Amino acid sequence: MKSERIFDYVRDVDTALIINGGENQIDKTFFYITGAKSGIFEGSALFIRPDEVKIITSELEEQAARETGYDVIIFKTRDEFNEIIKKIFENHTNIGINYSAVSLEQYKNILKIIPDKEFIDISQSILEARKIKEDDEISKIREAAKIASDSLEDVIPKIREGMTEIELAAEVVYAMMKNGASGESFSTIVAFGKNSSMPHYFPGKTKLKKGDFVLIDYGAVYQRYCSDTTRTMVFGRASEEQKEIYEIVKRAQHESMIKIKENVNGRDIDKIARDIIDSTKYKGRFIHSLGHGVGLDVHDHAALSPSYDFVLKSNMVVTDEPGIYVPEVGGVRIEDDVLVKKDGYEQLTTSTKDLIEL
Amino acid sequence: MKSERIFDYVRDVDTALIINGGENQIDKTFFYITGAKSGIFEGSALFIRPDEVKIITSELEEQAARETGYDVIIFKTRDEFNEIIKKIFENHTNIGINYSAVSLEQYKNILKIIPDKEFIDISQSILEARKIKEDDEISKIREAAKIASDSLEDVIPKIREGMTEIELAAEVVYAMMKNGASGESFSTIVAFGKNSSMPHYFPGKTKLKKGDFVLIDYGAVYQRYCSDTTRTMVFGRASEEQKEIYEIVKRAQHESMIKIKENVNGRDIDKIARDIIDSTKYKGRFIHSLGHGVGLDVHDHAALSPSYDFVLKSNMVVTDEPGIYVPEVGGVRIEDDVLVKKDGYEQLTTSTKDLIEL
Repeated sequence: MKSERIFDYVRDVDTALIINGGENQIDKTFFYITGAKSGIFEGSALFIRPDEVKIITSELEEQAARETGYDVIIFKTRDEFNEIIKKIFENHTNIGINYSAVSLEQYKNILKIIPDKEFIDISQSILEARKIKEDDEISKIREAAKIASDSLEDVIPKIREGMTEIELAAEVVYAMMKNGASGESFSTIVAFGKNSSMPHYFPGKTKLKKGDFVLIDYGAVYQRYCSDTTRTMVFGRASEEQKEIYEIVKRAQHESMIKIKENVNGRDIDKIARDIIDSTKYKGRFIHSLGHGVGLDVHDHAALSPSYDFVLKSNMVVTDEPGIYVPEVGGVRIEDDVLVKKDGYEQLTTSTKDLIEL
Repeated sequence: MKSERIFDYVRDVDTALIINGGENQIDKTFFYITGAKSGIFEGSALFIRPDEVKIITSELEEQAARETGYDVIIFKTRDEFNEIIKKIFENHTNIGINYSAVSLEQYKNILKIIPDKEFIDISQSILEARKIKEDDEISKIREAAKIASDSLEDVIPKIREGMTEIELAAEVVYAMMKNGASGESFSTIVAFGKNSSMPHYFPGKTKLKKGDFVLIDYGAVYQRYCSDTTRTMVFGRASEEQKEIYEIVKRAQHESMIKIKENVNGRDIDKIARDIIDSTKYKGRFIHSLGHGVGLDVHDHAALSPSYDFVLKSNMVVTDEPGIYVPEVGGVRIEDDVLVKKDGYEQLTTSTKDLIEL
């Protein structure tokens, strides 16, 4: 049970409080534990013990909460919420909370409601649990990845000269939702030409013209789980420089990905890709980490990075996404979601990596 | 200047640190202050004084940061980030931080980097500043509202028997992005038939059939600012019960909205709508607050609620969204974004409120 796993790496605590704020402060651990299929659950909370989960929420989410099968306690006002929290934690002294998700303001409020408790940071234990995906989680990520790959097939025929980045981003999101995504896992990046040199570029009104790079970094959400993938193409014939950059990035991804398996260090995987890029004239142009975990959050946890000692374990899902960015020229990134296995890996996003000249 | 306004309601502090975590912990105040048009700015920070803003960010966001015109300091590693923070706050003792956005974990880290400071909660002052929209903010919200209203016009002709909720949600998002939105301001709600009785329903595979309510709750993001609007229609001929529910909600919205103006209390506006609904046989079926603020966050701040003493001020933007929800039957909600003015209001979302029988 997931309610049990979140206590795996802590001592002296077997009771936890998960608490959501507003839309920007929803602790995805809420959904990790409850599996709630619908609902937003702002201002809601969970009482968790290894074998027990109670959902404390408002009438707004009552139906969604009841569908989980867990106990549900409904409040109508903040005062009622406070009373419920007070009562439910009455006989518990040590209470685990997720330091990485609770704001100082929420914490101040908790201290007012139940001042006589000892609060223990269980964020690390929650993170460890969430890093290793269970079968139900993998199948959702697998579907999110499939939706993304299928959607690129649908979108490619729609790419035409003069269309704007925003228009193409609209096509990407539309295709994903038509293919069953509940939405995009982050704001889709479409960058034409030299705009592709900004890894976190926002699509604008730049129009597509012959010779441009077309970088699409996008992902689907399926039953709250994310995928995250990038492809870079060229509109028209690729120049020698574009081909060269592309092939280096492709090689960096391939050589790093084939080394992914249980017990390998993410830092070493990053180094394989980085060394390939740094051995070319594009040395220093790979300006981010090679990859991150993917799950309920699209950036679920740090994973493949030069500055992070991180041992890969079976059933983690990580991205492998090297890139070369040349200001005023453009950038190439190739990104896939990879399931770590005991003796190797499985690539979940599956679009072709041959350089596409549109 | 917005960097000045965030200190308006605090004393003894004229220096602030805004700090972003991962994708789920981006303090929108970062964009309120900088106006950065693109970029995600995970793990970035701001040094703010009334007349000074410095952006501390990674190479990933360097171009986006420089485009703001503010000072930019680039870090490559967390150690470099820590050194920059240490140095930049060297000569400042009292430092304001946003308690509502900083997690306990971030706070612990800040205390490690600069342990010798006094940290002062300026969340209330930031909230007060952000509540009152300036001209540039209003024009962005106005555009986000226009995109939403225009998009409904584009979507209505596409509604047809047998389509799923997810398919219709895809059309809504597609229309908004085609009309210039960077994305949806929250996961679009499309609910057919009795599903509309769940205010926070997630669209699923339910197929549209004759006689169903069609509830669409959606909003656009334009240059990071949100709109939020809901329309409820009937597919085919509306039954007498559907018409009755619809007309009550419509009246509750109209009668409450026309009382919106500066210095009126949001609690009284909520009461007008609630009393209308509670005077009918649907008493108690309006199970949420009447409205909330809209801005960089779609739920920007609490506003019109029975349990909240809130005086409306000019240039706030709030939703007015009464609803009636009857489990196993369905629900109706009508929601618009309203700009508060000195002597009245301006409705920013403008789709018709006549009951549409599709």
